[in-house]
Amino acid sequence: MSSRPLFVVLGLGDGSGTGSAAARVFSQAGYRIALIARSGRDTAQKLADELNNTGGEAAAFPVSAYNYATVHDVFGNIDRHWPNAQLRAALFNAGHGVWKGFLDVTEEDIDAGVDVNIRAAYSFSREVILRQKELPLNDKGKRGTLLFTGATASLRGNVTTSGFAPGKSALRILSQSLAKEFDKQNIHVAHSIIDGQISTARQRNLHGEEWSSNPDNKLLPESIAQSYLYLVDQDRSAWTWELDLRPAHEKW
Amino acid sequence: MSSRPLFVVLGLGDGSGTGSAAARVFSQAGYRIALIARSGRDTAQKLADELNNTGGEAAAFPVSAYNYATVHDVFGNIDRHWPNAQLRAALFNAGHGVWKGFLDVTEEDIDAGVDVNIRAAYSFSREVILRQKELPLNDKGKRGTLLFTGATASLRGNVTTSGFAPGKSALRILSQSLAKEFDKQNIHVAHSIIDGQISTARQRNLHGEEWSSNPDNKLLPESIAQSYLYLVDQDRSAWTWELDLRPAHEKW
Amino acid sequence: MSSRPLFVVLGLGDGSGTGSAAARVFSQAGYRIALIARSGRDTAQKLADELNNTGGEAAAFPVSAYNYATVHDVFGNIDRHWPNAQLRAALFNAGHGVWKGFLDVTEEDIDAGVDVNIRAAYSFSREVILRQKELPLNDKGKRGTLLFTGATASLRGNVTTSGFAPGKSALRILSQSLAKEFDKQNIHVAHSIIDGQISTARQRNLHGEEWSSNPDNKLLPESIAQSYLYLVDQDRSAWTWELDLRPAHEKW
Amino acid sequence: MSSRPLFVVLGLGDGSGTGSAAARVFSQAGYRIALIARSGRDTAQKLADELNNTGGEAAAFPVSAYNYATVHDVFGNIDRHWPNAQLRAALFNAGHGVWKGFLDVTEEDIDAGVDVNIRAAYSFSREVILRQKELPLNDKGKRGTLLFTGATASLRGNVTTSGFAPGKSALRILSQSLAKEFDKQNIHVAHSIIDGQISTARQRNLHGEEWSSNPDNKLLPESIAQSYLYLVDQDRSAWTWELDLRPAHEKW
Repeated sequence: MSSRPLFVVLGLGDGSGTGSAAARVFSQAGYRIALIARSGRDTAQKLADELNNTGGEAAAFPVSAYNYATVHDVFGNIDRHWPNAQLRAALFNAGHGVWKGFLDVTEEDIDAGVDVNIRAAYSFSREVILRQKELPLNDKGKRGTLLFTGATASLRGNVTTSGFAPGKSALRILSQSLAKEFDKQNIHVAHSIIDGQISTARQRNLHGEEWSSNPDNKLLPESIAQSYLYLVDQDRSAWTWELDLRPAHEKW
Repeated sequence: MSSRPLFVVLGLGDGSGTGSAAARVFSQAGYRIALIARSGRDTAQKLADELNNTGGEAAAFPVSAYNYATVHDVFGNIDRHWPNAQLRAALFNAGHGVWKGFLDVTEEDIDAGVDVNIRAAYSFSREVILRQKELPLNDKGKRGTLLFTGATASLRGNVTTSGFAPGKSALRILSQSLAKEFDKQNIHVAHSIIDGQISTARQRNLHGEEWSSNPDNKLLPESIAQSYLYLVDQDRSAWTWELDLRPAHEKW
Repeated sequence: MSSRPLFVVLGLGDGSGTGSAAARVFSQAGYRIALIARSGRDTAQKLADELNNTGGEAAAFPVSAYNYATVHDVFGNIDRHWPNAQLRAALFNAGHGVWKGFLDVTEEDIDAGVDVNIRAAYSFSREVILRQKELPLNDKGKRGTLLFTGATASLRGNVTTSGFAPGKSALRILSQSLAKEFDKQNIHVAHSIIDGQISTARQRNLHGEEWSSNPDNKLLPESIAQSYLYLVDQDRSAWTWELDLRPAHEKW
Repeated sequence: MSSRPLFVVLGLGDGSGTGSAAARVFSQAGYRIALIARSGRDTAQKLADELNNTGGEAAAFPVSAYNYATVHDVFGNIDRHWPNAQLRAALFNAGHGVWKGFLDVTEEDIDAGVDVNIRAAYSFSREVILRQKELPLNDKGKRGTLLFTGATASLRGNVTTSGFAPGKSALRILSQSLAKEFDKQNIHVAHSIIDGQISTARQRNLHGEEWSSNPDNKLLPESIAQSYLYLVDQDRSAWTWELDLRPAHEKW
């Protein structure tokens, strides 16, 4: 099993969303899975157990918070757990922001967003690129892929997004800067715009049965994850930096 | 063989580019292929023969020019050729424009662009949507997919693109309008931004051996075509309207 | 009076909108005004009379339709009317499109849009640039300014804009191409995004008294016109290609 | 003189750029000027003296650094200096970022950018809006205007902008969120894209005589400042959120 490439995902939410689905899809596709989450050991460990019990090779790397030090350190832990692993794909799936009127946004709200959207994103990108730079080209002509999960707010601000959209926008433009700098070194950087509600356990509880059973109105995490696998599999002649993803019946 | 879904492509260029590659990829994936081209019977017929000789089911539908009438009529011909075919995927792959200083752009240049980018695009979209509206949902929850090939010039004008970019931009915004109107009816409309040189026979001749043998500097038509197949296969929970595609080493 | 610079505007609508307001504002600012309109001799002539009666110098140049020939010819008429006039500012203020579901958009609708948004825009731009190229720099360091009136639909498509947005988008990208090509020759090209209802006679009738008396919900034509005068007055060190304009209380 | 409206500018650079020019232009237009700068008391005080000696009414408010506390406190100082002043216009003109390859960007670089582009921008916006909310409408139908200075990097990332563009992009989207929230309360929020080199003392020294004497290749700070005054003077029927500004001969 030592030859499985490594997929690192940061950000698992409640364990029923994009990050977990990506872990499952990449595990199924033959990747080792490193799960970085601040949602407590339970979520990441439960998912690691599930993947290990279904033919996968996964480990949980819980962190207390997302910031420079914790992200840096957790990559060291991953290195020690799987020496010589080839980190071929990585997904920055965390986000933090508040949806409120601007005058209700506090300094604490802003700082919490900075920690995730700016600092953790910086450190995650750095750790991934430092490792991918050293890898040989694979059969797709790439050293690795670095993925970012974005949102509609990555593209534009709205009435209650002054505590949310700036961070998502900063992350998007970071990913574009990285794409322009590192695509040339055969490291593929991509960003997705998730435009709509995702069918997580939390959203289904919130919206009720009728919403939950409608197949046209929400994003399935596994479909988002399939798009991430597609991006990772793109050969070097045709790389996508950005794609949008939305349910068929989304108003946009 | 009568149950094969139908893929219609308009625009084959010199037969070595995106349109032809899409025909091959979709044929391989089990689609019947209708080839609409104004590049003369030869290109389309040769490709149809090739596909028919490799287990496919294809037919050439040459047209003298792209305009309302010819596009309308050719769909009638396709209907007669394959009665009851399910037109599940369609690609508008034609484009016309001139790269010159604005004062050298003639009325004839403008009109030639209008015929392709505006009129043929209108008629093609109309014929496809009229047919896809009547189809039942497939296993991806869609009636069909309508794809458009765009370019960097779809997004912005540049110094010598006053005779090119307006038409590409109009096509892009048509596709966005259609996506917002017909996604809700489970017809998926998507647009790709091709940002770079495509490895066609013509481009390889033009640029020479060194350029041609570099795997990092140009788009392979078959890789573009794979992205089109991916879009067609997206389930209704996560549809992409737009993605960009460029070579790893493209400056952008 | 022979030294007044010339302002040419194409598109007067019902005579109560942006084009007319621009004519008044530029007349007040010391420009001769050439009024090109297909809305019948009445609208243009009435406005010319008004301007001539208030210290201005204006003439009406009605055309039967907007297309290559009529636009070309009308500039010849303007030349004959004011030999040696310096065409320092020009505004393309016409637009044509239909707001309907795509399947209700007809070939006639498309062609009517092409005539205005593509053909007339091409000829207007050409005639203006040919004349401005020959002018000496003025005290702002420019030979002239070419303005375009755009709309929200210039930027993106929506559900019922497949017969409208493509033409506006083409016009916008034409203006961007022209800006990149001719700004370098000290001809300033600019485009405005009018995002909201304009307070024309027709709109006030349509929306009634309450709407009409609200100062926060609609664009005043004279305020748009002031922004055009501002653009024309920008010195060569800081030119705007694009600005948006919307009422304070517009939802966007 | 007690009835002069107040203009607050944060960010004076070396005293020869946009912030200082704006102070001069608004002083000339009849505003009291509050100068917030971390460039040392000298720059701000010298400019305040100059304005006071030319018929203006200005005061320097130096700060040691830009962060939540210093920005909050300095507004308290301004209140005490001019009790009951009407803060009708404000300009956030600071920015911080590094132009280097991503792997050379340090945590210190990131944090320095966060302090300016995120934290100081948040506090500045908050202090301005809290004050402008309480003002009556002026003769333009507005309570006040909040301006932000942006850059090309506000719109997109590039090869060496991973330490610069994310912060500018976050600031831009903050301004858009604020515009959508507060325009409705008749507070006008606007953002400018400065696309090109500004003719500051530092740039002229750097580029030499030929560059400095070319009137077509760089932005004059006073021309940028005039555009800010124009934005502040827009009446409520036609507000601009964003405009770009570039020299006539800029390549873009």
